[in-house]
Amino acid sequence: MSERKTKPSSPAPDAPVPKAVVSRLSLYLRELQRLVRDGHDRTSSSQLGRLLGFSDAQVRKDLAYFGHFGHPGIGYRCDDLIRAIRKILGTDRDWPVAMVGTGNLGRALLGYKGFSHQGFRIVAAFDVDPQRVGATIEGVRVFHLDQLPEVATDHKIKLGMIAVPAGAAQNVADRLASAGIEGVVNFAPVTISLPEHVRQVGVDLAIELEQLSFSVVSRIAGNGGA
Amino acid sequence: MSERKTKPSSPAPDAPVPKAVVSRLSLYLRELQRLVRDGHDRTSSSQLGRLLGFSDAQVRKDLAYFGHFGHPGIGYRCDDLIRAIRKILGTDRDWPVAMVGTGNLGRALLGYKGFSHQGFRIVAAFDVDPQRVGATIEGVRVFHLDQLPEVATDHKIKLGMIAVPAGAAQNVADRLASAGIEGVVNFAPVTISLPEHVRQVGVDLAIELEQLSFSVVSRIAGNGGA
Repeated sequence: MSERKTKPSSPAPDAPVPKAVVSRLSLYLRELQRLVRDGHDRTSSSQLGRLLGFSDAQVRKDLAYFGHFGHPGIGYRCDDLIRAIRKILGTDRDWPVAMVGTGNLGRALLGYKGFSHQGFRIVAAFDVDPQRVGATIEGVRVFHLDQLPEVATDHKIKLGMIAVPAGAAQNVADRLASAGIEGVVNFAPVTISLPEHVRQVGVDLAIELEQLSFSVVSRIAGNGGA
Repeated sequence: MSERKTKPSSPAPDAPVPKAVVSRLSLYLRELQRLVRDGHDRTSSSQLGRLLGFSDAQVRKDLAYFGHFGHPGIGYRCDDLIRAIRKILGTDRDWPVAMVGTGNLGRALLGYKGFSHQGFRIVAAFDVDPQRVGATIEGVRVFHLDQLPEVATDHKIKLGMIAVPAGAAQNVADRLASAGIEGVVNFAPVTISLPEHVRQVGVDLAIELEQLSFSVVSRIAGNGGA
């Protein structure tokens, strides 16, 4: 590809890593794991780029943030690169996760098998509905939300997912923070505030659809769109 | 706030809108709709910024991409700004949506009420499992995937959601494109390719968790993280 001509400059070792780069690491990991499942043990920046629609220079530049991987003319060993990326992303360890909310979305997430491949293990669910507390969904016990502090300690829970209605989300966020949770995925369609040391990611499915409709109407209007 | 000192420069009228700006538009819309539900009819860039953790200059700069809104010293009328943002995002119209896949995640999405507020209406679901075809889930009829072309035409379906296993996603994507769908939200944990005119957004829940774990381990290692 044409980008090969210019050698991308290596970022400074202590430069903060752009968010977009970290997102692409997850995509590289996903493709590498698929390649291994399909029986491949080596890959290259151009193969990875082609699978994902990026240039090979982009792939090399992204990986250069984290060190030297692969060998010129040989490429990458999939297993080595998987191990390295998992270490960077923190998914080389076990992450016990709490699910708060066991309505439609919470139940679906409890049944979702895709998390556990990366070390995310939902170990307890929480609700306030007496009809749900005490149940077991997809092998996960549902506790009352008031039990969060002790269950979080017992199971060494580090991450929480919020799948409650918007009006209840901030209260749940406060409780998760008090229980020592270090990171939260918020599925409720509302902005929550958390102490600065607690990390958060928001997933609002309506917003994803809005971004898509923007892109469609922009294309139709002929002014591009992302 | 300190950013108020420097007047942000207006972007050129035909500048492509950065993706991050479009994402924030969705957040502004969500807060504005909440303000209206709470009985407010006016707001300001500083209030919107405060609710979302952005500076007021950021809010004004983002909105300046799309025209002149609000009045100095008075602020914005919520209704006007909601109408304007919905027009920009394309959610001022009705978007009939197809859901492909009625497993755990597909069912949860069919039961999710948050889409319809923004005009996204799931009008038909599709599956290949004979046990599911013909059923009605959350008021939505499940058709066989082979019926996609005619159902898409009948219901003027413009967007599709893919909630099938990774191995089936590309085939579904191809069928959606052939049926004239203009945009796809892909929930399957795999990269799909689509004709250039078909827009796509990918939502991989494992990736969201990885981004969170990266952020937590980066904080613990003391080198920031997003």
